[in-house]
Amino acid sequence: MWKEENNMLVRTFKFDNFVQAFGFMTQVAMLAEKMDHHPNWENTFNQVTIRLTSHDAGDVVTEKDRKLASEIDKLM
Amino acid sequence: MWKEENNMLVRTFKFDNFVQAFGFMTQVAMLAEKMDHHPNWENTFNQVTIRLTSHDAGDVVTEKDRKLASEIDKLM
Amino acid sequence: MWKEENNMLVRTFKFDNFVQAFGFMTQVAMLAEKMDHHPNWENTFNQVTIRLTSHDAGDVVTEKDRKLASEIDKLM
Amino acid sequence: MWKEENNMLVRTFKFDNFVQAFGFMTQVAMLAEKMDHHPNWENTFNQVTIRLTSHDAGDVVTEKDRKLASEIDKLM
Repeated sequence: MWKEENNMLVRTFKFDNFVQAFGFMTQVAMLAEKMDHHPNWENTFNQVTIRLTSHDAGDVVTEKDRKLASEIDKLM
Repeated sequence: MWKEENNMLVRTFKFDNFVQAFGFMTQVAMLAEKMDHHPNWENTFNQVTIRLTSHDAGDVVTEKDRKLASEIDKLM
Repeated sequence: MWKEENNMLVRTFKFDNFVQAFGFMTQVAMLAEKMDHHPNWENTFNQVTIRLTSHDAGDVVTEKDRKLASEIDKLM
Repeated sequence: MWKEENNMLVRTFKFDNFVQAFGFMTQVAMLAEKMDHHPNWENTFNQVTIRLTSHDAGDVVTEKDRKLASEIDKLM
């Protein structure tokens, strides 16, 4: 599901509509703020692409990224 | 599911946790703003109680309330 | 601003409209999830009433409530 | 503020932190759903970049984009 590319974990999520997509984003926002680890992400209508990397560690994938990815997957 | 009491449609929703509950609330907020018809609602942790009534019609249940209730049910 | 009544810290916030009120609620939701300390709260259109108490401590006001109240105030 | 580039209206908003940025995004989400006109947008921590174009009109800037941009500006 998540692919590692360019030192980021990347996954795209598709939903039925914008309301579903943004509801998901709000849940991810709460998880991210709780972990104090925030995504680079973009949204277009029903689609959300999340990119995770650890800026503090020099823009590489760390355990923090894997943990947030795992928490996000539990939302689905 | 929805009960009519005191001229309001009322339903309580329970979720696994706060993140799920508030994600749902964000979806309801978008539907409500789109319809320009807003709930009276309260949240405690994993529980959300929504009360719908039409202030403009004299605080009674109208077709607008039934439509918003139906849209909310589709989120579940 | 915050009043202590019935072993809860209580404050009502008024905004220009629902969009402003719910944007504020989303910010509070992130703070609450981060602190793992969640409000009892209700919203009607442009008005949000927040009640803070510590269930784990026997439903009394504790330092956790005062800290969350202080964080919420910084959003205004 | 908004620049027109590549047939899109583009503006980047900076906030103090993620909580402020995502609160803003939630407000924009409600406006967008209400207008049934949704942004292409991305967020990294305290920064939000919004791109507006009208897919239905052939991916060009239309009055709908200008109206949503104007509504977003009123949030600031």
